[in-house]
Amino acid sequence: MSAPITVALLGGGTVGSQVARLIREQSDDLAARIGAPLELVGVAVRDASRVREGVPADLITDDAAALVARGSDIVVEVMGGIEPARTLILEAMAAGSSVVTANKALLAADGAALYRAAEKHGVDLYFEASVAGAIPLLRPLRESLAGDRVTKVLGIVNGTTNFILSKMDEEGADYGDVLAEAQRLGYAEADPTADVGGLDAAAKAAILAELAFHTRVTFDDVSCEGITGVTAADVAAARDMGFVIKLLAVAERTDDDRGVIVRVHPTMVPRSHPLASVRDAFNAVFIEAENAGEMMFYGRGAGGAPTASAVLGDVVAVARNIRSGGRGPRESIYANLEVRGVDQARTRYYVNLDVADRPGVLATVARAFSDNGVSIQVVRQEGHGDDAGLIVRTHLALDGDLRRTIEALRGLDVVKQVVGVMRVEGEAGS
Amino acid sequence: MSAPITVALLGGGTVGSQVARLIREQSDDLAARIGAPLELVGVAVRDASRVREGVPADLITDDAAALVARGSDIVVEVMGGIEPARTLILEAMAAGSSVVTANKALLAADGAALYRAAEKHGVDLYFEASVAGAIPLLRPLRESLAGDRVTKVLGIVNGTTNFILSKMDEEGADYGDVLAEAQRLGYAEADPTADVGGLDAAAKAAILAELAFHTRVTFDDVSCEGITGVTAADVAAARDMGFVIKLLAVAERTDDDRGVIVRVHPTMVPRSHPLASVRDAFNAVFIEAENAGEMMFYGRGAGGAPTASAVLGDVVAVARNIRSGGRGPRESIYANLEVRGVDQARTRYYVNLDVADRPGVLATVARAFSDNGVSIQVVRQEGHGDDAGLIVRTHLALDGDLRRTIEALRGLDVVKQVVGVMRVEGEAGS
Repeated sequence: MSAPITVALLGGGTVGSQVARLIREQSDDLAARIGAPLELVGVAVRDASRVREGVPADLITDDAAALVARGSDIVVEVMGGIEPARTLILEAMAAGSSVVTANKALLAADGAALYRAAEKHGVDLYFEASVAGAIPLLRPLRESLAGDRVTKVLGIVNGTTNFILSKMDEEGADYGDVLAEAQRLGYAEADPTADVGGLDAAAKAAILAELAFHTRVTFDDVSCEGITGVTAADVAAARDMGFVIKLLAVAERTDDDRGVIVRVHPTMVPRSHPLASVRDAFNAVFIEAENAGEMMFYGRGAGGAPTASAVLGDVVAVARNIRSGGRGPRESIYANLEVRGVDQARTRYYVNLDVADRPGVLATVARAFSDNGVSIQVVRQEGHGDDAGLIVRTHLALDGDLRRTIEALRGLDVVKQVVGVMRVEGEAGS
Repeated sequence: MSAPITVALLGGGTVGSQVARLIREQSDDLAARIGAPLELVGVAVRDASRVREGVPADLITDDAAALVARGSDIVVEVMGGIEPARTLILEAMAAGSSVVTANKALLAADGAALYRAAEKHGVDLYFEASVAGAIPLLRPLRESLAGDRVTKVLGIVNGTTNFILSKMDEEGADYGDVLAEAQRLGYAEADPTADVGGLDAAAKAAILAELAFHTRVTFDDVSCEGITGVTAADVAAARDMGFVIKLLAVAERTDDDRGVIVRVHPTMVPRSHPLASVRDAFNAVFIEAENAGEMMFYGRGAGGAPTASAVLGDVVAVARNIRSGGRGPRESIYANLEVRGVDQARTRYYVNLDVADRPGVLATVARAFSDNGVSIQVVRQEGHGDDAGLIVRTHLALDGDLRRTIEALRGLDVVKQVVGVMRVEGEAGS
């Protein structure tokens, strides 16, 4: 057996402690698969005095910079956040270490800097665990589909919001109540903004889009709307129509083939669509490619052990590259597609209106849609006393046209309130 | 841009012509992703006089051996069958070519010989397209899950039988009628044995099992039963119970963790299970791993363009390895688990009996199960005149115990006929 491949671990939390455990528990398997043993040389943590299950005490240090400076074969970064993670990763690469990271925020904010450093120092950069936990998704995009042309990526990539929306759908409960329950159960953080605001999903969408379209896409390029505005009434209306509301991350080529749009927003999905049955903390992502057609990937999107599994897969890949003298996939940014705003997206919409219950209302409302270039697919009218509810689903429409339609609707006497507006995905032809 | 990476193509049929088309149509993308252009140097076919859409006439040759002898960087084998494919692949490797193949039959029969030659000559062997067409499945098993411990692989990997079983389920039609229709539509071959006999699925199961369990598994190790014995009555009985019949390929560790069982057989799956809604030519595979948990992969399992997409992904991977001076994943056979027969498998069963309609029958039948160590989960009784139908679903049972139970049932006066026996997968806890 060859000399050990050394691994330094930055972060000893939920994921880090599982990575340490797996390196120890699966050492024989890993050595056989790599052709050399993995040797964990240190675990950098914020508080070195805390006992961490599964992590040998003598490997713990609070001096991450010194650990990185040792120039291990592989540095695994699972501490999260932009700094000090970025500085440590760049220093690790400068010291000749290949890097495996699960840091979606950093990759989405400044992945280019990491790639540049990897290229400069001739080391590998792997990050499968940064999106959708244990589900192999980035390797298929970077490698399996490297001979195809991806047209769309669409999926559920945030477990917290999926848990909340699943509960709202199942129990008819209000957003606030379910969020509070999720916080009690540990599914949502005390400050839930990154999840419920869609920021976590947006970072993942940027990473997916960049790999899918060979075009630079950063966090700031993603049009992002969270779930804080989703009401029990929206959920109930969706249910009545045979739909369910999911927070989707969508990245797609524009019709002219020269642009991409990357967006995260609450979305109505037909209850018969496979995404509708993805519950709680599970993730699922559809990829459409010109030749491969439509594919779906499903599995656990978060959690210590699943994320650690993805990290270890990358560690084995890097170790095998080191053994064979090769390199993993490099950055592949050459297509230079224009990243456009969601205002240029064409999607179907659901619009929920409170209208006066009198003759001619439907014609007036329908004219507001057609005058603004939005074609109606289905209308559903429900009377309740003086008022009536009117639910409209549109054909594919430009975001700008829909906005003008909504403004026009708000200006109509017969429209008392625009109760809800939401995009629809997953219908045939959409 | 660097010197071209040369590609020789063996096979100009459905898949080969699509590979040739993609290399031409996507040449700019492929060159950008690889860092060097791909150059198709020849296409070996059986009948060089036939015009093939998308394949330049001057590249066509019927002398495969001479094409291989040119020592291209990459040889793509999509001709199928054991010989001459094996000889040509071995000669290609001896000439220094890395090989990308979609040949499931050859890999399942004698993959070891291909791996040995790849190792000896220091070249790559990739074969993503050999199982489940466009779905990235082997790369996740070989690489993404290289840091985890796979416990079970289970899925639908043959489109022809899935088409037939879907039709039988939807239309209540007989096997023979649906097969004839599938043949008319081109979904089944004139001689359908390899598909309907389960042999194609068995080859794929062997490939999946070998990668999943790091243990040599060949076609002969797979316990295989096709769908020719599935009757409209079985399908109807399954439907009545809320189940659907699918041909599943299953590879799993045994309870003692020292063996694996690889089996292909018609299986009852709960209609609520994701596999139940996989229709027609689509494939879907579940992978369970200790840390990653349960994952599902879904997509097009066959067809020229989807298969060619998978082939091209491998071609890009090999080309990148050549450019970086590295190697792809080598053979990883070290676990030496014992490959056991299906008689040692523990599954749930469905048993359909015609019994005399008189008091005490259920007790007599139940005793035949319990006497042979098989525990009953659900019984459903239906009277029709003199006879009654009795449908039993069991808890997990050993194949041998179930067989003895069936023999005992056949010896009972009250049992007029054992109408159907089938394994059940996909229930909670099974």
